[in-house]
Amino acid sequence: TLEFDPKEHQHLRYNPLRDSWVLVSAHRMKRPWQGQVEKPPEDDIPRHDPSNPLCPGSTRANGEVNPDYDSTFLFENDFPALQQDAPDPGSEHHPLFQTKAARGVCKVMCFHPWSDVTLPLMQLNEVRKVVDKWADLIEELGASYPWVQIFENKGAMMGCSNPHPHCQVWASSFLPNEPGLAERSQRDFLQKHGEPMLVQYARLEAQRKERVVVDNDDWLAVVPYWATWPFQTLLLPRRHVLRLPDLTAQERDSLASIMKRLLTKYDNLFEISFPYSMGWHGAPTGSYLTEDMSHWQLHAHYYPPLLRSATVRKFMVGYEMLAQEQRDLTPEQAADRLRSLPEEHCKLGEK
Amino acid sequence: TLEFDPKEHQHLRYNPLRDSWVLVSAHRMKRPWQGQVEKPPEDDIPRHDPSNPLCPGSTRANGEVNPDYDSTFLFENDFPALQQDAPDPGSEHHPLFQTKAARGVCKVMCFHPWSDVTLPLMQLNEVRKVVDKWADLIEELGASYPWVQIFENKGAMMGCSNPHPHCQVWASSFLPNEPGLAERSQRDFLQKHGEPMLVQYARLEAQRKERVVVDNDDWLAVVPYWATWPFQTLLLPRRHVLRLPDLTAQERDSLASIMKRLLTKYDNLFEISFPYSMGWHGAPTGSYLTEDMSHWQLHAHYYPPLLRSATVRKFMVGYEMLAQEQRDLTPEQAADRLRSLPEEHCKLGEK
Ligand SMILES: O=P(O)(O)O[C@H]1O[C@H](CO)[C@@H](O)[C@H](O)[C@H]1O
Ligand SMILES: O=P(O)(O)O[C@H]1O[C@H](CO)[C@@H](O)[C@H](O)[C@H]1O
Repeated sequence: TLEFDPKEHQHLRYNPLRDSWVLVSAHRMKRPWQGQVEKPPEDDIPRHDPSNPLCPGSTRANGEVNPDYDSTFLFENDFPALQQDAPDPGSEHHPLFQTKAARGVCKVMCFHPWSDVTLPLMQLNEVRKVVDKWADLIEELGASYPWVQIFENKGAMMGCSNPHPHCQVWASSFLPNEPGLAERSQRDFLQKHGEPMLVQYARLEAQRKERVVVDNDDWLAVVPYWATWPFQTLLLPRRHVLRLPDLTAQERDSLASIMKRLLTKYDNLFEISFPYSMGWHGAPTGSYLTEDMSHWQLHAHYYPPLLRSATVRKFMVGYEMLAQEQRDLTPEQAADRLRSLPEEHCKLGEK
Repeated sequence: TLEFDPKEHQHLRYNPLRDSWVLVSAHRMKRPWQGQVEKPPEDDIPRHDPSNPLCPGSTRANGEVNPDYDSTFLFENDFPALQQDAPDPGSEHHPLFQTKAARGVCKVMCFHPWSDVTLPLMQLNEVRKVVDKWADLIEELGASYPWVQIFENKGAMMGCSNPHPHCQVWASSFLPNEPGLAERSQRDFLQKHGEPMLVQYARLEAQRKERVVVDNDDWLAVVPYWATWPFQTLLLPRRHVLRLPDLTAQERDSLASIMKRLLTKYDNLFEISFPYSMGWHGAPTGSYLTEDMSHWQLHAHYYPPLLRSATVRKFMVGYEMLAQEQRDLTPEQAADRLRSLPEEHCKLGEK
């Protein structure tokens, strides 16, 4: 009988954070691709464009003029999906027509005054400033909101409508679905196994090494065993840390460093500015701040869409939407490819 | 105090099939769009292209020659994500590194010998043949497999790599995540409320009317109260039906008719061949065939990506991937727009 080879034989892997399964069919990479081809990311973004509402000195949609900022810059989203003062929906209580109130605030944070840089191309001390600002935002907005979602949509392919380096912060009066799943599964894991799930996971991955992409004394970036996107990664502290503001000065520096290294590898993979959505998940805030949340471990998810090249993405469509997510290479293959890439950014060599 | 208006005030709605919430922020449609623009679907597909492996008489990747078919045509996917004979993965039993065996079969089904038609442009009796073939496939593959996923990826935007009208059928040895959720929630609902969830839902939506797009004596297509994609619809029989093979001859005819009407409206919305992923969910099969599955109701989901025009899609990215799905118009607004469109296909007027 045939011996099982994860690269040749489809199998299921369990995602313990989302309590769901992914179908790994790595032999699918052999099929030729004749479908949609993406526009590669723009390469000639001007450093300063006075008509770009994210640039220093520009006028935004609401008429406000941006300061001449020289580091990070935070402002309220001019078209927020969450507003602070939305009235409560009436009381439709039928089980099939359930509505709940949602309140919140949406902010945008520019990483840098220049439009032609990205995190991996910024100086370490500049990335560190982004980390500090993230921590401040969790502290400030988390004082009242139970969930503060920091996320970056990078690249037009990921719905990002402005090339200036920036992220968004949406704070909400409710705990959204995804952190809700992570809350439940981490709570159950600690109860059952006596150790926080992702603390144990980081320790085991550091030993096994085959899915580690980059690491340092404080952090580990792995292609998780249950990755769904081709080059998805999970960024984890080695120490048990609940939330971004809990990071020490040293851990913030080493976070800036590992992010720069991971994102450099991403850019080097297809020699383009690599598109992705990323975001931070830490213990919920607001009224949760006074509860025991020791089952949580801080982490960041990176979800990049590209599969084969700068122009061929993975489509999460039909089967994935209706049945189950499916991937076309093993997480170990993905980690191996990323790990073997140089740590110098491909763009720096050019210059 | 302000009165709640679902078109102006964000709120959450509950999806009882997936046990999750969607954030409805309809005021977001006011924001200008400066992001990625899609290529509109190709409009000049040749009726017959001998180099297209899906056409009658063509040679496929494995060397087989297609018959000169004149109706539907079924064949094995040449690059299947599920193979029948994959060996069992070893026994890694750690809770954070769980693997399971997956076996199955992947088929492709052409709807019609011509490449330049789609379901809404086909004759009613031709669509009826597709319905019959779907029912046969559930019957045949469902005899041994617990789940048979019929799905159609339509349009390059939805990862479809061949313009010839076709769908796919992936049968698996496991119950995938999405039907797994629907299994649990429908079972709970029947237990709690004494009526199958979607039978009750179809009845109530038929009374309320505001989310109905098209209907006939046997079927109802609604933008569900909890829709996440802008123009998502749910196609439901009025009668309690577990699986496609259970449909009567009359119900198959009226299904062909309502599909043609719904898809004509979709095409008329932006006057293009409307991209979507769609698929059928009915009671699980295989060993479930002998169990009481009366909590299930047969239904089809349509997930179309477009939001504003033929070239501007909804991006389910950052916040949606990391926190919670968000939509930019209310389901009632979407239903209203679709309902008000003519039932004659925009392409037929042209000719
Ligand atoms: O099988 P196809 O049409 O080549 O591939 C398409 O549908 C599959 C099933 O939804 C997806 O896994 C692929 O990403 C998509 O490109
Ligand atoms: O807020 P933006 O950047 O205009 O919009 C982008 O991110 C949002 C949050 O993930 C999504 O809801 C939008 O679909 C996407 O285009």
